[in-house]
Amino acid sequence: MADPLSPGRRDVLPSLLPAWSPVPGRDAIRREFRFRDFSEAFAFMTRVALLAEAGDHHPEWSNVWNRVEITLTTHDAGGLSERDLRMAAAIDALLA
Amino acid sequence: MADPLSPGRRDVLPSLLPAWSPVPGRDAIRREFRFRDFSEAFAFMTRVALLAEAGDHHPEWSNVWNRVEITLTTHDAGGLSERDLRMAAAIDALLA
Repeated sequence: MADPLSPGRRDVLPSLLPAWSPVPGRDAIRREFRFRDFSEAFAFMTRVALLAEAGDHHPEWSNVWNRVEITLTTHDAGGLSERDLRMAAAIDALLA
Repeated sequence: MADPLSPGRRDVLPSLLPAWSPVPGRDAIRREFRFRDFSEAFAFMTRVALLAEAGDHHPEWSNVWNRVEITLTTHDAGGLSERDLRMAAAIDALLA
């Protein structure tokens, strides 16, 4: 069971994860990624899938050719938790 | 450049691909798939990605844990084409 994100952590979220945006109407964050083509996009998705399975924390995500959109939230916590912040940072690190 | 689906082929589409549904407001078809867990869902997605790349025809798709939703349409044709029917049949065959 994950704890909801504390108010202090919410305050620093935009500076910790500047590439991620709040999702309107949900306690969740999202980021869109663009690649050269489908092959690059799906290679990225495969790396994210491995992160997700290793951390037992899975994204809501979609793909259209070279675009990937990832939404993170924690169903157990009813919204954002530290697990989302860790996952977002790990995803960002794949592209660093 | 893909040709739009002929009226005759549209008529037989429901019997050719009974598991696929029309997408409201679009000339496209969709199917939802459910698996035991994320690992099974992503294994399926990987096989669909290989089909997509081999056929140079890519789905619009999303995944949430054990669920995968796939939408097929042909942007070049402004809607459904034979390429979508072939892709849908190939995806169905993965699960046969």
